[in-house]
Amino acid sequence: MSISEFELIDRYFRRRGARRNDVVIGIGDDGAVLRPRPGHELVLVTDTIVGGVHFPAMMSAGDVGYRALAVNLSDLAAMGAEPAWCSLALTLPQADETWLQGFADGLLELAERFDMELVGGDTTRGPLTVTVTAHGWVPAGQALRRAGAGTGDGVYVSGCLGDAAAGLRVVMGESTCDAESGSALTRRFLRPEPRVALGQFLRGVASSAIDVSDGLAADLRHVLEASARGAEVHLARLPISAPLRACEHGESAIERALGGGDDYELCFTVPPGRESTLGDWLAEDGVPLTRIGTVVERPGLRFVDAGDVVVDRHISGYAHF
Amino acid sequence: MSISEFELIDRYFRRRGARRNDVVIGIGDDGAVLRPRPGHELVLVTDTIVGGVHFPAMMSAGDVGYRALAVNLSDLAAMGAEPAWCSLALTLPQADETWLQGFADGLLELAERFDMELVGGDTTRGPLTVTVTAHGWVPAGQALRRAGAGTGDGVYVSGCLGDAAAGLRVVMGESTCDAESGSALTRRFLRPEPRVALGQFLRGVASSAIDVSDGLAADLRHVLEASARGAEVHLARLPISAPLRACEHGESAIERALGGGDDYELCFTVPPGRESTLGDWLAEDGVPLTRIGTVVERPGLRFVDAGDVVVDRHISGYAHF
Repeated sequence: MSISEFELIDRYFRRRGARRNDVVIGIGDDGAVLRPRPGHELVLVTDTIVGGVHFPAMMSAGDVGYRALAVNLSDLAAMGAEPAWCSLALTLPQADETWLQGFADGLLELAERFDMELVGGDTTRGPLTVTVTAHGWVPAGQALRRAGAGTGDGVYVSGCLGDAAAGLRVVMGESTCDAESGSALTRRFLRPEPRVALGQFLRGVASSAIDVSDGLAADLRHVLEASARGAEVHLARLPISAPLRACEHGESAIERALGGGDDYELCFTVPPGRESTLGDWLAEDGVPLTRIGTVVERPGLRFVDAGDVVVDRHISGYAHF
Repeated sequence: MSISEFELIDRYFRRRGARRNDVVIGIGDDGAVLRPRPGHELVLVTDTIVGGVHFPAMMSAGDVGYRALAVNLSDLAAMGAEPAWCSLALTLPQADETWLQGFADGLLELAERFDMELVGGDTTRGPLTVTVTAHGWVPAGQALRRAGAGTGDGVYVSGCLGDAAAGLRVVMGESTCDAESGSALTRRFLRPEPRVALGQFLRGVASSAIDVSDGLAADLRHVLEASARGAEVHLARLPISAPLRACEHGESAIERALGGGDDYELCFTVPPGRESTLGDWLAEDGVPLTRIGTVVERPGLRFVDAGDVVVDRHISGYAHF
């Protein structure tokens, strides 16, 4: 196969997906030229996924394309940003046209859904590695941060936890599960839904936020460290889906919910005076929110059982090295 | 070795290099928050380098870090942009601390020299692959493009051509060369100088611009295609350095100058009425400029010899796939 980098970009990635009127020059020159939004700050995120490390080597091209953008949209959501533009650095062993078509479809359909335009990229030959850099806008001063959780704030998560980790086990054939539950969990692993609208709703409401990519325990610890606080989380309150309960026994389901990565839900804290605002979200959107605990003065993350007794529990999140 | 992603970023990349007052939140949260510059447009570029593909596997960590940023600075230069921020996606087989220190030094020293702040990143485990996404500013409407070359415009290049390709041969032990010339060419390969100041000077002067990364012939063809023009280039006018002449015979030196990649010089076109402006650049800066040919109406790139006779010559640039 002989296809140049330029034909590649042209054939699969150019002039597709959302078109935005703030893109002066898109794909096809040495760089993109983009028009800033007055009164706003630019939010910049970047995430790499590596074949055989962050996703199974046999995952479909469409699912890889979807994931590469979804993990970045999730970071934008955690900052409270409105998605705008992204660039793609795609390294792949050979220019397989069927694969490229599927990959571009998976990525660009998700981009279009969030009104995001692919404005630049680089394709190179090498082991399958995909880096997306994504850009969004927040009104000046309103970005959500990891720092900011205050003593007494409620600790919340969106959706359910642990589904994606259980779904990966189904995909890898490591789980015995009824077909319906297995299929629901697989979909949660393959097509995580970035909580973009929720992130924007939380501006001015949440005191801190992070997306759950490495597992709730690991990610909540980042919030607590950045905020110089601790938290008590009630194990019985963890939102565990029916399919996860159907596929994994009680203790193992809790393990997935606390330590499993790839859920891409938001974990955030809300001061007592603003918690009632969350009702406006629930009234408007189908994504459930659950208060799982409380921010406390004393540093560290502690888990408590139904009788409010602290439970000793070692949970390690996803280890990058 | 057990070092988490967060320790990695913290130890080697955070709170080093240039600090800019338009960075509201830098490395350490889910994303960076950046303040736009009024009256300006954002230029976004991204480039990936893969170990064993874009650079020899044995290249030093410092040289890899330098190159990863330099190729992006060169793209910003080709757009006429002033560098501002960059993000880094670093995939590496293991977290070797000596290597990381050298890599960070190579990248951050270059960033600091161009007043550029590293504002975000992702480190992942996998085969050595480095993607930098870089951002810069141009006054609204003034970005340099590939399209825009007009019939009769002069075709120019900065510096000398072919040195980097010859330097790579020296590095790989494929060249017999006197020590001094070999060392000069090696340095041109390992530490290419992005023509950032020249790119900004060319705003409002050049009618089109591109950086020479895949070889002059290949890159000039992109300009000609985007501009729907052709060009005649005089082989005798190609700027060939003394070290290149010392290491490669006449015809082979011309081959390097036309087909060799990695020089990261600028190739640009200037309308006749503005060519005198280039004298201001020469008076101010040490980077030489050479007029190598003329833009013509008839599409295609043609080479002419000393007698103005068109020379048939097949040159293929760097093939990405």
